[in-house]
Amino acid sequence: METKPIVLTGDRPTGCLHLGHYVGSLQNRLILQDQYQQYVMLADVQALTDNYEHPEKVRENCWQVALDYLAVGIDPEKSTIFIQSMIPQIAELTIFYLNLVTVNRLKRNPTVKTEIQQKGFGESIPAGFFMYPVSQAADITVVKGTLVPVGEDQLPMIEQTNEIVRTFNRIYQTDILKECQALVPKAARLPGTDGKAKMGKSLGNAIYLSDPQEVLLKKVMQMYTDPKHLRVVDPGQVEGNMVFAYLDIFSPDPVRVAELKEHYQRGGLGDVKIKQYLFEVLDAQLSPIRDRRAQLSKDLTHVQKIVLNGTAQVEAVAAQTMLEVRKVMHLDYKLK
Amino acid sequence: METKPIVLTGDRPTGCLHLGHYVGSLQNRLILQDQYQQYVMLADVQALTDNYEHPEKVRENCWQVALDYLAVGIDPEKSTIFIQSMIPQIAELTIFYLNLVTVNRLKRNPTVKTEIQQKGFGESIPAGFFMYPVSQAADITVVKGTLVPVGEDQLPMIEQTNEIVRTFNRIYQTDILKECQALVPKAARLPGTDGKAKMGKSLGNAIYLSDPQEVLLKKVMQMYTDPKHLRVVDPGQVEGNMVFAYLDIFSPDPVRVAELKEHYQRGGLGDVKIKQYLFEVLDAQLSPIRDRRAQLSKDLTHVQKIVLNGTAQVEAVAAQTMLEVRKVMHLDYKLK
Repeated sequence: METKPIVLTGDRPTGCLHLGHYVGSLQNRLILQDQYQQYVMLADVQALTDNYEHPEKVRENCWQVALDYLAVGIDPEKSTIFIQSMIPQIAELTIFYLNLVTVNRLKRNPTVKTEIQQKGFGESIPAGFFMYPVSQAADITVVKGTLVPVGEDQLPMIEQTNEIVRTFNRIYQTDILKECQALVPKAARLPGTDGKAKMGKSLGNAIYLSDPQEVLLKKVMQMYTDPKHLRVVDPGQVEGNMVFAYLDIFSPDPVRVAELKEHYQRGGLGDVKIKQYLFEVLDAQLSPIRDRRAQLSKDLTHVQKIVLNGTAQVEAVAAQTMLEVRKVMHLDYKLK
Repeated sequence: METKPIVLTGDRPTGCLHLGHYVGSLQNRLILQDQYQQYVMLADVQALTDNYEHPEKVRENCWQVALDYLAVGIDPEKSTIFIQSMIPQIAELTIFYLNLVTVNRLKRNPTVKTEIQQKGFGESIPAGFFMYPVSQAADITVVKGTLVPVGEDQLPMIEQTNEIVRTFNRIYQTDILKECQALVPKAARLPGTDGKAKMGKSLGNAIYLSDPQEVLLKKVMQMYTDPKHLRVVDPGQVEGNMVFAYLDIFSPDPVRVAELKEHYQRGGLGDVKIKQYLFEVLDAQLSPIRDRRAQLSKDLTHVQKIVLNGTAQVEAVAAQTMLEVRKVMHLDYKLK
């Protein structure tokens, strides 16, 4: 009998979630939660590896991200939302797994290499950041996750997890840890409103799920289009034009988008017109989310209860995993 | 009002304790336990960093070392013996502290450098071993230890702990973590029976507290003396002669030792004679320990109860420390 996959996914609570998350992961989770057991982790410990000087930001964002989850339709009856730092077993597993990975192996991890460069750590990489692939292996295995939605760039992390799983099972002659599979979403990465390849909290080019309608309008009106398209009558470029890039993803009416593209390229279609249409498209999708979020925000205690309740459920699962791990590691001290 | 120091000390349970431990740390603990609150840690997690393939050995030695403790007079009414792996807060603190230390700082740690060389890890240092100074900072601070008996070679570890304490207190604007002081014992390091600078489990040159009388006799009779002292009538060397080195440390009668040295140097005193005397001296000290150990071994459950009881006490202290740490780190999630 094949066992149902267990999904582990989550976010670093360093800011509210944006359209990039919506397209890249949230929509996918709505599908997954109907099919599988899904754990959604508020990765505060991981967020602290490069935000350790601003823990209050991480904490506040835990609740904000939880609000985003519930607003988009992550259903606590189907998905278990939990806070990473409240599962001590993740820390315990991380410590045990650190013995099974060499420093050189960590250095070779392409994802870590790239991120160290991006974050400009230079020679001063915090040790916590350096070893976060090991911590991720603990996140996944503590709930016995077998299906992990990740971006292409995170594939080396999954490889690292499976290496640890295999080493652990071999050394401790067991099969309690399960290898996991990466689930790479087909969706293209959403570019930023400024045309940069990635929408990012720190890049100032994001449209947040929580943005009020007027902010959404303003952001859409400021989007990067074709800088050479100065007069309405001029022909405009569709490639690299963010309005069309977003319409391709979000518009429910591809025929109309094709017509608009054709008109824009021919000349005679102004940016304001296409932006107005994109605003309508986005607002149609975001306004119910925004409304639910506003509703939920009125009773934050309810949201916190959902998260703390999910956390308690995961703690029970994690405690069971640790029992099994301690047993095979001969660390289940008790009276003889 | 000055607060009383809190002592943290302990051993890696990788084998039974020997005379080197007795002279170097155990005797000191007997004094400390009368003056201060003393925590004695069975450092199984640390032992696993270079024994992760033999956890059953580590586990068995936990009880053996506990037997050694009780046999020499570590008094559970005065000292709290506990098992490191049963305090999850140590793992949690380690993960938080890893953010406060750079990889380069760890690389520069002289103790780790030396040990990496000694253990022949080469390029394949397990990450767990590499970051064990951070784990030690967690060991010490989780019980708010302020006095840590260590060898001279371990001073960089104390420095690392205090660096972490200062960084933590600065970043999280608190004073909950306390800096600790190293307590370097005056006692000279006990050489091995083979004349090597250090008595060590892995060197095969150790006299164990648990050695039966006949094994003690045999080990003393095989001790390294003066290889040029072939006939009884010949003058013998006292320097580098392990029998005299041990007599200097263990004999309660320095006048007699001085006389024996003089006689040995003059010639006419055979190795067997001085070894016989050393055996008597050592046996006088070890036989009560051996007897108590044999007595305690008959009821291992009693010993285990003592250790598990101590562990429960430490867990309560650790939980309190974590509460405080979570508070200043804004990780004390609860309903608003």
